[in-house]
Amino acid sequence: MNQKISILGAGLVGSLLSILLQKKGYQVTIFERRSDMRNLTLSAGRSINLAMSMRGWAGLEMAGLREEIEQIAIPMYGRQIHAIDGSQTFQAYGKNNEAIYSVSRGELNKKLMTLAEKAGVEILFNQKVIDINLENNLIQIENENGINTSENHDIVIAADGAFSALRNAYLKTDRYDYQQFYIPHGYKELTIPAGVNNSFLMEKNALHIWPRKNFMLIALPNLDGSFTCTLFFPFEGEVSFQSIQTDEDITTFFQTYFPDVMSLIPTLLSDYKNNPTASLVTVKCYPWIYKNKNMLIGDAAHAIVPFYGQGMNAGFEDCRLLMGIIEKNDMNDWTQIFKQYQQARKPQGDAVADLALQNFIEMRDLVADPTFLKRKKIEKELGKLFPAVFNSVYEMVSFSHTPYFEAISCQQAQDRLLEKVMQAGEFEKLIPTEDFKNQLNDWMNEYAEEIKKIKLIV
Amino acid sequence: MNQKISILGAGLVGSLLSILLQKKGYQVTIFERRSDMRNLTLSAGRSINLAMSMRGWAGLEMAGLREEIEQIAIPMYGRQIHAIDGSQTFQAYGKNNEAIYSVSRGELNKKLMTLAEKAGVEILFNQKVIDINLENNLIQIENENGINTSENHDIVIAADGAFSALRNAYLKTDRYDYQQFYIPHGYKELTIPAGVNNSFLMEKNALHIWPRKNFMLIALPNLDGSFTCTLFFPFEGEVSFQSIQTDEDITTFFQTYFPDVMSLIPTLLSDYKNNPTASLVTVKCYPWIYKNKNMLIGDAAHAIVPFYGQGMNAGFEDCRLLMGIIEKNDMNDWTQIFKQYQQARKPQGDAVADLALQNFIEMRDLVADPTFLKRKKIEKELGKLFPAVFNSVYEMVSFSHTPYFEAISCQQAQDRLLEKVMQAGEFEKLIPTEDFKNQLNDWMNEYAEEIKKIKLIV
Repeated sequence: MNQKISILGAGLVGSLLSILLQKKGYQVTIFERRSDMRNLTLSAGRSINLAMSMRGWAGLEMAGLREEIEQIAIPMYGRQIHAIDGSQTFQAYGKNNEAIYSVSRGELNKKLMTLAEKAGVEILFNQKVIDINLENNLIQIENENGINTSENHDIVIAADGAFSALRNAYLKTDRYDYQQFYIPHGYKELTIPAGVNNSFLMEKNALHIWPRKNFMLIALPNLDGSFTCTLFFPFEGEVSFQSIQTDEDITTFFQTYFPDVMSLIPTLLSDYKNNPTASLVTVKCYPWIYKNKNMLIGDAAHAIVPFYGQGMNAGFEDCRLLMGIIEKNDMNDWTQIFKQYQQARKPQGDAVADLALQNFIEMRDLVADPTFLKRKKIEKELGKLFPAVFNSVYEMVSFSHTPYFEAISCQQAQDRLLEKVMQAGEFEKLIPTEDFKNQLNDWMNEYAEEIKKIKLIV
Repeated sequence: MNQKISILGAGLVGSLLSILLQKKGYQVTIFERRSDMRNLTLSAGRSINLAMSMRGWAGLEMAGLREEIEQIAIPMYGRQIHAIDGSQTFQAYGKNNEAIYSVSRGELNKKLMTLAEKAGVEILFNQKVIDINLENNLIQIENENGINTSENHDIVIAADGAFSALRNAYLKTDRYDYQQFYIPHGYKELTIPAGVNNSFLMEKNALHIWPRKNFMLIALPNLDGSFTCTLFFPFEGEVSFQSIQTDEDITTFFQTYFPDVMSLIPTLLSDYKNNPTASLVTVKCYPWIYKNKNMLIGDAAHAIVPFYGQGMNAGFEDCRLLMGIIEKNDMNDWTQIFKQYQQARKPQGDAVADLALQNFIEMRDLVADPTFLKRKKIEKELGKLFPAVFNSVYEMVSFSHTPYFEAISCQQAQDRLLEKVMQAGEFEKLIPTEDFKNQLNDWMNEYAEEIKKIKLIV
């Protein structure tokens, strides 16, 4: 008898996980709140491009979907920074030409759903989960037939996102630790259309950033030559969504802060006025599991802000590592599987949430700071000189499988090391000297224990 | 037309607030989930004594209830520390013989309810609030007639405790910041009965503590000569509620850690086995208000752990300061009243939550630490020598109206100052010397700006 696993949510994580579990031999059903997105044209202004990096690819590979998605992924080798005077500079992400990949969330999700159905997964749409009895996995579902109780779920896995119904049920249990908080910024999508013959009007293979200290605009390339732009902007304050309301406000604001991009967005006024303003939540909670009955995964367990491009990547890593844990145990011993999963992933969920919050400051402010840029340059050189010891936190997060909390844990030591190197004098002049090389060697040895964390193996 | 204010919860804060608002001229109704406690004998094991201090008294005074409650309050002038060898030491709370007061929660609550009804407040019992429509204050209530919608609430004030129904409705709104977390310890009540002729079997006028590093037992006196004891103890671990289960476990545990108290609790085994084990939550949330419609107060806004004895005191201070704000505004301008209330009280709610968590470590561990005791002694001396400048954080919290966050803010400066004084040498030997007095004077001047925070006026 194959166990019946019910997954809540047919988003990226739910769909991928369903494929992996079904292939493993379970009988998987997905309950999805919305209607089948494959029959709809995506609603404007909420598309959001993904930045797929190493952890995301590893999840897709496990499901045998890597090559297919590579066809629709655009490599971005670094940040293209747009200064207010229109000048642009390029900052590579890695020292070995590594890239993160712009992928359409909608396209990826549709492909995953179709693959899931091919693998034998049943996806039920328009099923709104109202409540779940944690002890017996009875699910109250609202659909076209009203509200009914759905039975026979051996295991329930909630991949139902930042406002998870299962997590709401957890929240009512005794001793549940829970935290949700919003940053003061929201976001709004804008679109830079393609040029003639689907040409790209800006550099195609980069993630574009217009850093403006307390806010920023970013743009990611799409296959059709367009760019999806996102304005990350405070809700309230002197220069904010609240203060920019009229056509004139909008025009003046973009002329002041983003003069070079204005001409590229012909639908600026209607985009700004019609597209929704969305908020950005972080969620930390504990436990992620209930006995041997049900568990949280992806955003349901660790909703994060999008600034490290790690939301989907972390969710796919959850799936991949959960499968590894199932592999190592009796596949029906969910007490053990859940325990090991939670122990492995909870510290990572917290860490990636913190990394994502930190990276907002880096993106909107620091990338335009000369000292920061100097530091980035030195980081890269150190990485080349000491590849086995020194890797930047960004590289560990995006181009390795280093646990997120280990990437964070070496950050302070790296800061201290970089501080020393920068105080020694002008790096480029010093680096050819034998003395400085010896000095660097000594420092590297001194810090090796603390900063040598990178894990490249899946 | 008097505005109709509906209060959720007839606990201490809800009952006190109803009196203050009714006297101010509003028409107040309270919806209470439980039945009328005045008709019940209190269920054993959940009584909990209160430690009433200055802020609590000020609230009662405002309602004209101070003298009546003084009749049933037992002053506790300090901590009576019970070492494991049975030896006892006394640590005074204040330098001027100040006391905190042991009061029965049940008795106080009953008196407040009766006074509320006398003032014209209507208290409806057995009314379970299911949900609230924030925009129009329609309240869904479950009572003996089933679930119905209750209308005509101009203003709703939720004093419905750590699991507030109004706060649950807030939690579903966009951009709601929310945090709840539990400490690893729970608590269980035990009782030391009175001796012959209602005599006290231990020192009456003290708060008794058996500090055992990671856990502790405390005892507060009751009017009838008994003491209500509370064991604060980890849920899990080597020595924990989980590990102490059988009669033999219980007996061995008390013989090992609390040998002097065992003989005083004849019902130890049945108390331990029959009384519930309760958990300890901290809640921080924001906002506390919704437009000009409804607001949170007391535990509903800032549930805290009990280790500073400030839960009720902070709630009563909420009430008193809210009334002050109403006084300063048009009494029907709730937009203004709510705004000012939130601005004044939110930082205080966060601060008292942090103070309460800190004080657990002080109570269960530090009070038995020689260095800590030396420091306490010096604190007291400094307070006597420089009464206008130096007051301990404990004194500010318990014996003044200093805003909680100001008490916290001077803690670090006090730590640095005390460090200096303690490193200077043996305080008692140094203090008679003129040189040291001058040195102290200099230090006090140096730190005065940072530590001079105390506010004694109501």
